[in-house]
Amino acid sequence: SRFEYVKEFEQSDELLKNCWIVVRIDGRGFTKFTEEHQFEKPNDERALRLMNHAAAEVMKDCADMVLSYGQSDEYSFVLKRDADLYKRRASKISTYVASLFTAHYVFSWADFFPDKKLQRPPSFDGRCICYPTDENVKDYLRWRYVDCHINNLYNTCFWKLVLEKKYSKQQAQTELAKTNSEQKNELLYNDFNMNYNDCKEIFKKGSTQIWVHRADASSTVLTGPARAGKAKRTLEVMYVDLCKEQFWGDYPGIIPT
Amino acid sequence: SRFEYVKEFEQSDELLKNCWIVVRIDGRGFTKFTEEHQFEKPNDERALRLMNHAAAEVMKDCADMVLSYGQSDEYSFVLKRDADLYKRRASKISTYVASLFTAHYVFSWADFFPDKKLQRPPSFDGRCICYPTDENVKDYLRWRYVDCHINNLYNTCFWKLVLEKKYSKQQAQTELAKTNSEQKNELLYNDFNMNYNDCKEIFKKGSTQIWVHRADASSTVLTGPARAGKAKRTLEVMYVDLCKEQFWGDYPGIIPT
Amino acid sequence: SRFEYVKEFEQSDELLKNCWIVVRIDGRGFTKFTEEHQFEKPNDERALRLMNHAAAEVMKDCADMVLSYGQSDEYSFVLKRDADLYKRRASKISTYVASLFTAHYVFSWADFFPDKKLQRPPSFDGRCICYPTDENVKDYLRWRYVDCHINNLYNTCFWKLVLEKKYSKQQAQTELAKTNSEQKNELLYNDFNMNYNDCKEIFKKGSTQIWVHRADASSTVLTGPARAGKAKRTLEVMYVDLCKEQFWGDYPGIIPT
Amino acid sequence: SRFEYVKEFEQSDELLKNCWIVVRIDGRGFTKFTEEHQFEKPNDERALRLMNHAAAEVMKDCADMVLSYGQSDEYSFVLKRDADLYKRRASKISTYVASLFTAHYVFSWADFFPDKKLQRPPSFDGRCICYPTDENVKDYLRWRYVDCHINNLYNTCFWKLVLEKKYSKQQAQTELAKTNSEQKNELLYNDFNMNYNDCKEIFKKGSTQIWVHRADASSTVLTGPARAGKAKRTLEVMYVDLCKEQFWGDYPGIIPT
Ligand SMILES: Nc1nc2c(ncn2[C@H]2C[C@H](O)[C@@H](COP(=O)(O)OP(=O)(O)OP(=O)(O)O)O2)c(=O)[nH]1
Ligand SMILES: Nc1nc2c(ncn2[C@H]2C[C@H](O)[C@@H](COP(=O)(O)OP(=O)(O)OP(=O)(O)O)O2)c(=O)[nH]1
Ligand SMILES: Nc1nc2c(ncn2[C@H]2C[C@H](O)[C@@H](COP(=O)(O)OP(=O)(O)OP(=O)(O)O)O2)c(=O)[nH]1
Ligand SMILES: Nc1nc2c(ncn2[C@H]2C[C@H](O)[C@@H](COP(=O)(O)OP(=O)(O)OP(=O)(O)O)O2)c(=O)[nH]1
Ligand SMILES: O=P(O)(O)OP(=O)(O)OP(=O)(O)O
Ligand SMILES: O=P(O)(O)OP(=O)(O)OP(=O)(O)O
Ligand SMILES: O=P(O)(O)OP(=O)(O)OP(=O)(O)O
Ligand SMILES: O=P(O)(O)OP(=O)(O)OP(=O)(O)O
Ligand SMILES: [Mg+2]
Ligand SMILES: [Mg+2]
Ligand SMILES: [Mg+2]
Ligand SMILES: [Mg+2]
Ligand SMILES: [Mg+2]
Ligand SMILES: [Mg+2]
Ligand SMILES: [Mg+2]
Ligand SMILES: [Mg+2]
Ligand SMILES: [Mg+2]
Ligand SMILES: [Mg+2]
Ligand SMILES: [Mg+2]
Ligand SMILES: [Mg+2]
Repeated sequence: SRFEYVKEFEQSDELLKNCWIVVRIDGRGFTKFTEEHQFEKPNDERALRLMNHAAAEVMKDCADMVLSYGQSDEYSFVLKRDADLYKRRASKISTYVASLFTAHYVFSWADFFPDKKLQRPPSFDGRCICYPTDENVKDYLRWRYVDCHINNLYNTCFWKLVLEKKYSKQQAQTELAKTNSEQKNELLYNDFNMNYNDCKEIFKKGSTQIWVHRADASSTVLTGPARAGKAKRTLEVMYVDLCKEQFWGDYPGIIPT
Repeated sequence: SRFEYVKEFEQSDELLKNCWIVVRIDGRGFTKFTEEHQFEKPNDERALRLMNHAAAEVMKDCADMVLSYGQSDEYSFVLKRDADLYKRRASKISTYVASLFTAHYVFSWADFFPDKKLQRPPSFDGRCICYPTDENVKDYLRWRYVDCHINNLYNTCFWKLVLEKKYSKQQAQTELAKTNSEQKNELLYNDFNMNYNDCKEIFKKGSTQIWVHRADASSTVLTGPARAGKAKRTLEVMYVDLCKEQFWGDYPGIIPT
Repeated sequence: SRFEYVKEFEQSDELLKNCWIVVRIDGRGFTKFTEEHQFEKPNDERALRLMNHAAAEVMKDCADMVLSYGQSDEYSFVLKRDADLYKRRASKISTYVASLFTAHYVFSWADFFPDKKLQRPPSFDGRCICYPTDENVKDYLRWRYVDCHINNLYNTCFWKLVLEKKYSKQQAQTELAKTNSEQKNELLYNDFNMNYNDCKEIFKKGSTQIWVHRADASSTVLTGPARAGKAKRTLEVMYVDLCKEQFWGDYPGIIPT
Repeated sequence: SRFEYVKEFEQSDELLKNCWIVVRIDGRGFTKFTEEHQFEKPNDERALRLMNHAAAEVMKDCADMVLSYGQSDEYSFVLKRDADLYKRRASKISTYVASLFTAHYVFSWADFFPDKKLQRPPSFDGRCICYPTDENVKDYLRWRYVDCHINNLYNTCFWKLVLEKKYSKQQAQTELAKTNSEQKNELLYNDFNMNYNDCKEIFKKGSTQIWVHRADASSTVLTGPARAGKAKRTLEVMYVDLCKEQFWGDYPGIIPT
């Protein structure tokens, strides 16, 4: 038709070649959404498992994803350097991930919260970011990992003060503003007889998902995620320290060290 | 943390100011999805109404949207020139719309298909497009409108041939490849005793949603979508000819003529 | 060769269609360059005429340019909405203008400064900016025009104080910081017996260049810049008030009013 | 002024961090320009030396440039990964290089062509390209190097046939279309008693410019371009094979191997 010229107003948004692509999605207004759905404080394990499930479905759908990492209301997906998904068009990639993740989150809600009705549908924003070097993309993941740790330590203290010591939210915030990490650990230990290390790994470390090749379902790890036979590889959730070299050494196939 | 530098790799994707912004979403792989869910052919009215519902929820959520138009597995949202949603960041806007639309589509599926289980969650891609002039953005809508018309006429003939005349899909396609619009109308009339004009308006014209101000719920239209009191405005679905000047004249408040 | 893949790293930078394109270039480090070449203060008419000459050569080279405006060490070129120069690739357009302008500036230096040797070659940065509406691009020109006026009034006062009243630069700045436009006019009148209006038009208004169609070289203006016969159109420099509607009305062919 | 809002229409064009930035400029319409100025065929050494001079001036002006490579009417400048020139704004960088190079080319024309008047000022287009890895940016340089070699071999044969054997340009082209590299070498040897290897290095290899640190002006190379004392480093032009590992090994400080 004579109106087709309008198609030419679409502008190219192709991401730079040979860069790692990270897609991060984040729950929109989850401060309110988690309130409305009475998520456990500071961490709701079922909610995190639902996030992990939705992320796993995205990874299974997209051959280019080598790792994903989630914490709180966010999830990051790492696409390998040579990914050609949607010809690297940023808007296609980011909307695809945000939409598919959202779809699974809503679709599987009842499987994770059988006793809790979804009051209204949540949504997620998304963006693509390019990283030129292996070290840059690992630093990205370390950034999110450290963010998880810092927030979790803070939130653990915060809700202890509010829920058990009946501080107002304002009081708890003022109290914690003065403390460093070590002091927060001591606060938990001294005032609440809690060892922060005893927190669940999923809370402390966030969730890392990668493709693992094992000889059989129960045996130990043989190789990192490999190009070999797709048949044998399985997607696994781990709670690991992304700042330690150990992880990257254990799975050299993901991002070269 | 010392990893925060990675945040600086995010690149600005701010859309040009003072342009109309169109966000179009489109069902991913709906050829297969509609098969799996046995959508009626060529048009499934319940599916279209679910699309309209999801779009309406998006429009209610976003003050900057002045019109939306849907047909088949796609929906277009028009944001006014001075929209400042997410500071006009393209990825934020497109993922927001794609995600929220998807969320409502999955969430409300059962309301529109009480007898049909959602087998797997559908997803939608999305993109932003800028239009500098009023005529450009109207041509955009005319483009989608004409696309709806052409596809619907074709699909109506196609499925008549396949379902009623037992043509193979290949045969139907070959047959229709030879025909122009007029001949397709005649085919329907002569071979199937069907007047294309009797098709439902929602099929022939697609769905247009705008904010309408009425004196009371049942009275006639007083003004176009206005800045006045938000209290009285209601979102209405219409099946109108976007290529006729009439519509734009009736609602001068949407896009100046 | 097997290295050709590197060409694919070039990313598209096509400017949005149907927008006015403005290319502005600006002398790099002209504070120093004008000192080194002892430009007259506050305005060096020969330098401005050299700028006008270089800009005229650019306009004659590029069929898509409808107007240019220069003041101080900068020049703005307006390309019409449907310009297809270099397929609207931003980097090609901006480097083309910056390079060609620079080339003529250096090449023709001696014609404008026969008695003054060019000590070292000056350079200019450049950029493209898109404007969706006629009003926006006119506001752009008004912005530069007002900038010219404000700077020129300030600089006229500044150099009067420094050169005639032997103020230090610091003193002059402090003195002027307290004054508004009216007071600056009065300062010139009272202290220097100078009527700002008597300043040369090229200093007060900057230089506007457009294509003008005249019946013959000496007659009055017949029409605005037109598509008609290229033969008769000539590029003319004018010193006009771009904030007055008069100019746009006199030349309706440039940018619609 | 109330027009300042137009400044906000400038869109960010910041180049991705931690990538090598290549700026390539290329003479506009040099097929014609070289004809008009009777450049020697196929290579005019004085013209190439003028190009090298202009490029050297650009490199001396910009601390972020580590290497430049020129051949024919083009020059490529490599900026290091952490370059912060103009905050990595693409249009500023490309126009700066294109303009400054042009300025020097015109300014110094007479030094290289004392007997030949510059008829009209030449201009250069420019662009920025990002390369994420060391290998990518080296492949870029290899690409330009191979291009130089292929074109030079072709042009050498072409002009031999045209100038000495009096072929028409069309005949020469047809003749050469059938040949591979080896056959072109043989053609030169058999028909013109010329050993291609005896061609000047600047013609065969193009010109590479890097910063070299030497103990004294006449001694041998001590280190590659280094961060040490700027005092001792000098910019040197070399005619080297960019496809051989040797060069990169000799100067490990430029781009890591
Ligand atoms: N109670 C509870 N709250 C959680 C949990 N996970 C996340 N949240 C809450 C804590 C934060 O208020 C919020 C996540 O922070 P964000 O910075 O993403 O803020 P929010 O989503 O409200 O705003 P945004 O739309 O992302 O700008 O979600 C959880 O497991 N339990
Ligand atoms: N039976 C039936 N099919 C429909 C209806 N609405 C849309 N579809 C189908 C027809 C097309 O095969 C498909 C929409 O065409 P698209 O060009 O969007 O293709 P598709 O979504 O398969 O691929 P894409 O991921 O968008 O590239 O959805 C409907 O109401 N009934
Ligand atoms: N004496 C004299 N100076 C002039 C004339 N025209 C421009 N200039 C000087 C005044 C300013 O210092 C300078 C233009 O201001 P800019 O803001 O462009 O600064 P400059 O070019 O130094 O820095 P830039 O590289 O553009 O950021 O040039 C003139 O006609 N006479
Ligand atoms: N005779 C002669 N010609 C040369 C020399 N160096 C370059 N040229 C000519 C050969 C080519 O026709 C032209 C460079 O090729 P380009 O692909 O850059 O074409 P041109 O500059 O004409 O067009 P463009 O504006 O870059 O698209 O310059 C030289 O040293 N001697
Ligand atoms: O959303 P925030 O505040 O955690 O930080 P951000 O996601 O980097 O900010 P934005 O969503 O505005 O890009
Ligand atoms: O998806 P199509 O084929 O209808 O057309 P498009 O949406 O313009 O193409 P793309 O999804 O690749 O942008
Ligand atoms: O150069 P200035 O300060 O007059 O202002 P600008 O040109 O808008 O700034 P920049 O050159 O940094 O884009
Ligand atoms: O100019 P060419 O044809 O040598 O190739 P290019 O420079 O890559 O093409 P363009 O100048 O159009 O970007
Ligand atoms: Mg955010
Ligand atoms: Mg959030
Ligand atoms: Mg969050
Ligand atoms: Mg599509
Ligand atoms: Mg689709
Ligand atoms: Mg579709
Ligand atoms: Mg500037
Ligand atoms: Mg300047
Ligand atoms: Mg200036
Ligand atoms: Mg080119
Ligand atoms: Mg060229
Ligand atoms: Mg060339």
